[in-house]
Amino acid sequence: MRKSTRGQVDPFIVMDVMEAARAAEESGRHIIHMEVGQPSTPAPRAAREALVQEMGKDALGYTVALGLPELRKGIASLYKDWYNVDLDPARVVVTPGSSGAFILAFSALFDAGDKVGLGEPGYPSYRQILKAMSIEAVGLQTAAENRYQPVPSDIPPGLAGMITASPANPSGTMLGHGELEALIRKCHAQGTAFIADEIYHGLQYDGRAVSALEVSDDIYVINSFSKYFSMTGWRVGWMIVPDDHIRHVERIAQNMFICAPHASQVAAIAALNSREELDANLQTYRENRRILTEELPKIGFEKFAPADGAFYIYCDVSDYTTDSRAFAAEILEKAGVAVTPGLDFDPRRGAQTLRFSYARSTDDIREGVKRLAGFMADRGH
Amino acid sequence: MRKSTRGQVDPFIVMDVMEAARAAEESGRHIIHMEVGQPSTPAPRAAREALVQEMGKDALGYTVALGLPELRKGIASLYKDWYNVDLDPARVVVTPGSSGAFILAFSALFDAGDKVGLGEPGYPSYRQILKAMSIEAVGLQTAAENRYQPVPSDIPPGLAGMITASPANPSGTMLGHGELEALIRKCHAQGTAFIADEIYHGLQYDGRAVSALEVSDDIYVINSFSKYFSMTGWRVGWMIVPDDHIRHVERIAQNMFICAPHASQVAAIAALNSREELDANLQTYRENRRILTEELPKIGFEKFAPADGAFYIYCDVSDYTTDSRAFAAEILEKAGVAVTPGLDFDPRRGAQTLRFSYARSTDDIREGVKRLAGFMADRGH
Repeated sequence: MRKSTRGQVDPFIVMDVMEAARAAEESGRHIIHMEVGQPSTPAPRAAREALVQEMGKDALGYTVALGLPELRKGIASLYKDWYNVDLDPARVVVTPGSSGAFILAFSALFDAGDKVGLGEPGYPSYRQILKAMSIEAVGLQTAAENRYQPVPSDIPPGLAGMITASPANPSGTMLGHGELEALIRKCHAQGTAFIADEIYHGLQYDGRAVSALEVSDDIYVINSFSKYFSMTGWRVGWMIVPDDHIRHVERIAQNMFICAPHASQVAAIAALNSREELDANLQTYRENRRILTEELPKIGFEKFAPADGAFYIYCDVSDYTTDSRAFAAEILEKAGVAVTPGLDFDPRRGAQTLRFSYARSTDDIREGVKRLAGFMADRGH
Repeated sequence: MRKSTRGQVDPFIVMDVMEAARAAEESGRHIIHMEVGQPSTPAPRAAREALVQEMGKDALGYTVALGLPELRKGIASLYKDWYNVDLDPARVVVTPGSSGAFILAFSALFDAGDKVGLGEPGYPSYRQILKAMSIEAVGLQTAAENRYQPVPSDIPPGLAGMITASPANPSGTMLGHGELEALIRKCHAQGTAFIADEIYHGLQYDGRAVSALEVSDDIYVINSFSKYFSMTGWRVGWMIVPDDHIRHVERIAQNMFICAPHASQVAAIAALNSREELDANLQTYRENRRILTEELPKIGFEKFAPADGAFYIYCDVSDYTTDSRAFAAEILEKAGVAVTPGLDFDPRRGAQTLRFSYARSTDDIREGVKRLAGFMADRGH
């Protein structure tokens, strides 16, 4: 039976690590998980309780395509609270995770054959979703001295769109107001639609994350309840669109998704008011980050950009390997620590990088560092 | 800011009806809803209880892309139970609703510019999702004497794919084993991928629904927990793919969706074992269908194909109007009954058809018929 060409997307390399880790655990080994990109904490207590209540009194059928009005209003309030931005709830589109937001944004903005730029290293699914939608991904090699973030001179002419991420995955680095302004100005000047991925907002450690919405209204901003709000599996995110794109995006959403999961939307409304619990999670990440930032350089992993946010450290391991996949496999095998090879994020330079995630408990991170130290010592470092 | 061409999809015409109904209700009127395509019942009790339990003990993070193994196994068992088909759970792909399954199928099978056939009248989002993915929808006018189902001679050469639905929306008619076999044979002979939409399976009133999987393994079959399992808002569906498409589809799903909502998957597992409660819902639809099938012809709505399944009656109203949209608006205004204009389902002949949904309570259906009778009497019928 026929298969499409555009559907021939690359596999996630980290899946091999995860499968090897699973097999190791099945055989009785204890593995420290520094490969996963999600919190180990559940949705906030109030979110789960709200859903239990709502399941008792509502059938939880389809919602309107743009999402429950109360949720859209709550998200708009978050922009006032976090960024002092007055946002019309009408511009908030609730989506099935940020994944759904990307599908929606790409459908709304780009035609088959269009070119869209993205910084490398970056989230691998940007590229694969674009490919599956017959859009050409243009990887822009960012510089370590720019903290792996694109700068205006990296952006070529002729792009229909440009995706940025702040805090970024895998590097954790952020774009400040001036940097965002320069990038957006460049894009606007050449007719390139600007998409800001802000999924890790709320998880930052030095200063606050700046939203691209503080700079311009004529962009798409994508966020989610997955990371700061600790609701990955619930598949609920959102997108802010310009006024004159609301109806356009609504029609596509009606047809492609009908709506985001109703139960998840109910939980998300309550999650917006669970800041105390969520900030406690943030304190865990902060402590984990402190440990890794202090300890990794001592054991031979010293080449990484300061991680302003998210829960990752992206490390140049070119002193030790030209094959990050084999190196990650060796670390798993010998140290019992699962880490992500950089190839998922950067098809070119990623053969010499690793991503360490610190989304799990502090005890796990301490144990992980201890094991990594032993591994590097055995290697003669 | 730029908008794509492919994203310029048609609005749902029924949305205007729903908005007018909402406004009427807000002004104090009582409206009978025969426009909605979803059950008014919640997810089965056991499904909701299973989720409450699971929320207490699991963080409900991402699942693997193809879905929880227990759910995939349960769905495979359903094929044994309903159709006496032995199905390898490895071929079951859990999706974010059947909407997600369509996005996934179209990405996996078709490239930009490909042509895909679909019977008219049919579910409007097939056409719109195809357009948003740069695939050309080819509407095939089905005949009333074929009960609005395509026959092999309706299928032109040169199609990359063909979508069928049984029971169909809006007509409710089904394809038997021989009819499916003839359609699939024709498609296979000309290299056309066959996609069977079986979302209304479980909701049938005369004989059992035949799955296309009883005819061939070399097809895609799409289904969902939305209709028979009464879980529309939970956004969980599934797709059966050929063996040699599993990895191909898995990679696309990993990137485009990550996973279907975890909470919904947990609820779905328990829904599979809630047949008693679900069959009680079915008895309600059966009674509603009996009432409509008996009463509609008496009041002037006699031109409809026998509805074997689903919860719709699709009626030719060409004796009364050439503008189904205005006719539906008049029925809402004068009778206080919301119905769906056929234009959503058939861009050509739909100006002279209406869809009546009987998914709500039997009391509502009785009251709806009474009001429609009064409306038609006032019109001098």
